[in-house]
Amino acid sequence: MPDPVISRQVDQRLHELYERHKALDDSDVAGYYDSVRGLLAPEVAGEERDCFGIALAAHDGDVYVAGDAERPFALQSISKVFAYSLALEDHGREEVLRYVGVAPSGDAFNSIVFDERHHRPHNPMVNAGALVTTNLVRGKDHAERLERIVDVVRRYAGNPDLDAHRPTYEAELEIADHNRAAAYLMRSQDMLGGDVEEILTLYLQQCSITVTCRDLAMMGATLANGGVNPVTGERVLARERVRDVLSVMYTCGMYDFAGEWAFEIGVPAKSGVSGGILAAVPGKMGIAVFSPGLDAFGNSVRGIRVCREISGRLGLHTFADETEDTLMRRAQEPATES
Amino acid sequence: MPDPVISRQVDQRLHELYERHKALDDSDVAGYYDSVRGLLAPEVAGEERDCFGIALAAHDGDVYVAGDAERPFALQSISKVFAYSLALEDHGREEVLRYVGVAPSGDAFNSIVFDERHHRPHNPMVNAGALVTTNLVRGKDHAERLERIVDVVRRYAGNPDLDAHRPTYEAELEIADHNRAAAYLMRSQDMLGGDVEEILTLYLQQCSITVTCRDLAMMGATLANGGVNPVTGERVLARERVRDVLSVMYTCGMYDFAGEWAFEIGVPAKSGVSGGILAAVPGKMGIAVFSPGLDAFGNSVRGIRVCREISGRLGLHTFADETEDTLMRRAQEPATES
Amino acid sequence: MPDPVISRQVDQRLHELYERHKALDDSDVAGYYDSVRGLLAPEVAGEERDCFGIALAAHDGDVYVAGDAERPFALQSISKVFAYSLALEDHGREEVLRYVGVAPSGDAFNSIVFDERHHRPHNPMVNAGALVTTNLVRGKDHAERLERIVDVVRRYAGNPDLDAHRPTYEAELEIADHNRAAAYLMRSQDMLGGDVEEILTLYLQQCSITVTCRDLAMMGATLANGGVNPVTGERVLARERVRDVLSVMYTCGMYDFAGEWAFEIGVPAKSGVSGGILAAVPGKMGIAVFSPGLDAFGNSVRGIRVCREISGRLGLHTFADETEDTLMRRAQEPATES
Amino acid sequence: MPDPVISRQVDQRLHELYERHKALDDSDVAGYYDSVRGLLAPEVAGEERDCFGIALAAHDGDVYVAGDAERPFALQSISKVFAYSLALEDHGREEVLRYVGVAPSGDAFNSIVFDERHHRPHNPMVNAGALVTTNLVRGKDHAERLERIVDVVRRYAGNPDLDAHRPTYEAELEIADHNRAAAYLMRSQDMLGGDVEEILTLYLQQCSITVTCRDLAMMGATLANGGVNPVTGERVLARERVRDVLSVMYTCGMYDFAGEWAFEIGVPAKSGVSGGILAAVPGKMGIAVFSPGLDAFGNSVRGIRVCREISGRLGLHTFADETEDTLMRRAQEPATES
Repeated sequence: MPDPVISRQVDQRLHELYERHKALDDSDVAGYYDSVRGLLAPEVAGEERDCFGIALAAHDGDVYVAGDAERPFALQSISKVFAYSLALEDHGREEVLRYVGVAPSGDAFNSIVFDERHHRPHNPMVNAGALVTTNLVRGKDHAERLERIVDVVRRYAGNPDLDAHRPTYEAELEIADHNRAAAYLMRSQDMLGGDVEEILTLYLQQCSITVTCRDLAMMGATLANGGVNPVTGERVLARERVRDVLSVMYTCGMYDFAGEWAFEIGVPAKSGVSGGILAAVPGKMGIAVFSPGLDAFGNSVRGIRVCREISGRLGLHTFADETEDTLMRRAQEPATES
Repeated sequence: MPDPVISRQVDQRLHELYERHKALDDSDVAGYYDSVRGLLAPEVAGEERDCFGIALAAHDGDVYVAGDAERPFALQSISKVFAYSLALEDHGREEVLRYVGVAPSGDAFNSIVFDERHHRPHNPMVNAGALVTTNLVRGKDHAERLERIVDVVRRYAGNPDLDAHRPTYEAELEIADHNRAAAYLMRSQDMLGGDVEEILTLYLQQCSITVTCRDLAMMGATLANGGVNPVTGERVLARERVRDVLSVMYTCGMYDFAGEWAFEIGVPAKSGVSGGILAAVPGKMGIAVFSPGLDAFGNSVRGIRVCREISGRLGLHTFADETEDTLMRRAQEPATES
Repeated sequence: MPDPVISRQVDQRLHELYERHKALDDSDVAGYYDSVRGLLAPEVAGEERDCFGIALAAHDGDVYVAGDAERPFALQSISKVFAYSLALEDHGREEVLRYVGVAPSGDAFNSIVFDERHHRPHNPMVNAGALVTTNLVRGKDHAERLERIVDVVRRYAGNPDLDAHRPTYEAELEIADHNRAAAYLMRSQDMLGGDVEEILTLYLQQCSITVTCRDLAMMGATLANGGVNPVTGERVLARERVRDVLSVMYTCGMYDFAGEWAFEIGVPAKSGVSGGILAAVPGKMGIAVFSPGLDAFGNSVRGIRVCREISGRLGLHTFADETEDTLMRRAQEPATES
Repeated sequence: MPDPVISRQVDQRLHELYERHKALDDSDVAGYYDSVRGLLAPEVAGEERDCFGIALAAHDGDVYVAGDAERPFALQSISKVFAYSLALEDHGREEVLRYVGVAPSGDAFNSIVFDERHHRPHNPMVNAGALVTTNLVRGKDHAERLERIVDVVRRYAGNPDLDAHRPTYEAELEIADHNRAAAYLMRSQDMLGGDVEEILTLYLQQCSITVTCRDLAMMGATLANGGVNPVTGERVLARERVRDVLSVMYTCGMYDFAGEWAFEIGVPAKSGVSGGILAAVPGKMGIAVFSPGLDAFGNSVRGIRVCREISGRLGLHTFADETEDTLMRRAQEPATES
């Protein structure tokens, strides 16, 4: 049980952070993604413009929230992390590596340029690699494969109510020609097998799984906690696989901004086009931000800013050895004095 | 002072490692680099074929060696790490970022494709980025700039005898047309200013600085120790810059193999075409391997194998939370029982 | 009616040409295309290895043949010429240019790199451009569009029996993932509209139209004769459109070899993966060669050789002003003395 | 001697053409090139904005001019045609093909992407190919090589006063880093040998040769006349080489617009960044236009328009078989009635 004094202090800091980043100049926003209408200019984005939630889940399970932390949104590309973790469980590291690499490519998320040397997509965080990864998930039929993906997400979050969102994935299927092209291109080169339309459907169903910031932060905390959900106590990912998942998040998780993210913020993370960012800080916490205004890389503008500040103040950067802020950090550590 | 029992055990383990990796099948080797003759096939590589040294420098300064650990070789691309650290000291993070990025590009080390969005080379570990970095090193003239670069390398190693090797850099200047082209291309796009021939000379002089595995391991230990040489006690890099240097090593240091390295071995590192690999494990140790047989990526074949094994057995991977071997690790930790 | 003496001489020359090029070293052949099995190595190509036919149709309708000139084969990419001519008739030059360019791209026939400046495929002779072209062909439904394509090919050849070959296009549909990817990619970028599977079927039906060398030479003669079939006297293409069709054949018709073809052989031409080459020499003749052994560019090895020799000896190069051979040429000219 | 009635009519038509194209909207102009200042925006281009000259030289030597036809300007890239013709004379077709291809690349004029299959620049009309071509020109030293290039240009024009323009090439050498990079890149890949700075100087000297529209039209007439200057009667290029030169002009002469030029205008041509366009219509005439306002491809805006109109009205397109205008054409034909 968290120390009530510390809890209140963390709460205050999180709300102060939320207030400070609430103002957002439209000129910083490249667009908003809508699964029906595609990328939208700020002036037509409606209420999405103002959505903004933050959640922090300590590795021991305490959760702190601010803003629209209970508002549901689709995981989109963040789901790639969990499909990859499932593929690793189903096949092991070596086998998965045969089909999808682990190298940041420098190419856009929707690149159709592959790793020619190894005849595979560059990594599981670009769309092409994610299609291959999703197709590696085992199951006797489509329904079982989907059920397994949804189930693993539920267990990461410790929330049995999470589910794919039909209107979202049906809308996405309508505008999925680029992914369709990537899939057929890979199939033409024997990098992908099976029914493309079915793989695409499964992939978009996975992307449509709807969560809140609270859920997402807990999913991060599970990764941060070595694969064990800190609330349910369930092991969701084998200990030796956590390293693999965190590694690809670290080098490939933030689209074309991945290099700068690793340099400046320095924690394993993954963003999605719906405006979510998930960060998992090993041994410390999961962080989730949701704010749909995207920058030119496709990352949430507020999300990047909030994560940069949290990482800096708590000294979370993987290669940092000092912190700018000790109070908040204490909240994530076992309260030894109580 | 290290516990003599532990020291002997580490020594034994290192020699056992050396012996086990000594055998090397020519078919695993893409070539050997010679600064006069360029890339050589194994059958004409002469005595270079058999060179093989390993050194480990604990963050507290203890050094363990095996094989040809006292044999001198040119830093080559490993020097990029130290020129970058000097440029960061001279200009600060923001200014350096204006001229050279921090993103793994997915391109080869000699790529002449730049980050068009930011009008700069992708990162300081590819040749183009290294030319820009070297050109950022301050000095009133060429001699002073070179002296500053050599000096920082000496202080990292705690060895005042290190120096640039004239026959090497003179030979390299003869075969430097690709780097020359990269420099003129950048100058034509205002990414680089100044006299190309002079910049190139300074860069190749920096690359020709000659070290041993023992030196190199100590250079790694200095980075691992937060920027302070553990033997001389001198601060070589500001504490807040260490994070930046380790970050680019982590994501960009191993040529096209950087992604797989981060996934499998998971420590900040840099390799050079002369066959050296430097790894810096924050808070733990510096590792150096020298063995000139290169794989298709340009990394030392034995170097990769040795580092993979050390990382695995000591649990050094950044995102690992367990080790396969505890004995050796104890040697790197303060000996609490003595 | 041709002069019988000249006819006999042309016949002799053509057979002599056939005999001289009959020998073909497997080492010059990169492969053989089979619509069921894809690209085949020479040793498994079976009787295809020996197929070799030549036909010449003078602009006045006289036809000369040698070898397997009556053996049927699928037009494959040669059909792109006729679909393009139909699209030009249906929409006019300006409108067609909006959807597909006329620039040799330097890319492979199956390139999925587009003309970004104009947001269209580079030209109608690469697959992507041909898919767009075929989709421009008018018709109230699929059946009518196919009928119009088949019909125009029949009229070019003056042979009402020509037709699409179901086993061929059904087999091609099975291995069409690369074209499928190109089509979805273009649709995702609004370069192509409609049902991809239907467009692809129509395109592959068009490619499967089966002809003989005799037919193909007559199709060339129709183009050479300003768009009027010299035997039936029917105008198949408006006079002002002939220029457009010959122009793209000239610069884009021979895959990546187009530049060298224009330099060395210098006549409008188109090749297909089945081993056919069609050349149309304005005011003079149509030439057809069929021989399935393909070079690395995908052009018929014997086809290139025979065309080079005919062009050289008859002085057919667009920018040549002298001939090496006058006899054969006389055969293509109105026999003024008879 | 031309028929005076026809001459007057051609003169009138040319002046009418000049007047009609004199008006030029700045919004159609991407920029103006100045050898000292590089590419300039229209608003700072000064008197260059209004320069506009046209010249027509019939294959029999009659010349018709309008506007600034006597104003000198540097050949720039148009010189590539004549250096190529000289390299062909010096080495023959096969040998030159070993070093530089004949394929339109689809890349920009300053592309540093090469024909990897053949290890050579794509064609002699892109800068990289032109550097190689110029380096193929024979001579015992730099001075003799330059003299031979200047001399051949003089003989094409029939004007012994033509010369390289020192202020132009000295200014160009200052801003030649991109070409310098291309040269070093090729030398690093053994596509180019020798002293890069000397090759570059020779190339820029060649580019700086100064002509008028009148000269340029006569140079085109020499090519149109099978390699014989129609006024001096001197053979400047062997008959069998004319075909080669016209071929590469036809497919590669107009930068990235080459494909559309071949489709729409359809005559061998070459443009230069100084605003000149040279067209050579075999058996008919040379056409020269000078107007420095460039489009996005680097071609003269007025030049393209004037050539399009002349080609269309005189039916000059290589694959056209009819003309829209017969009067002007008669002027280029031997006046049979006089």
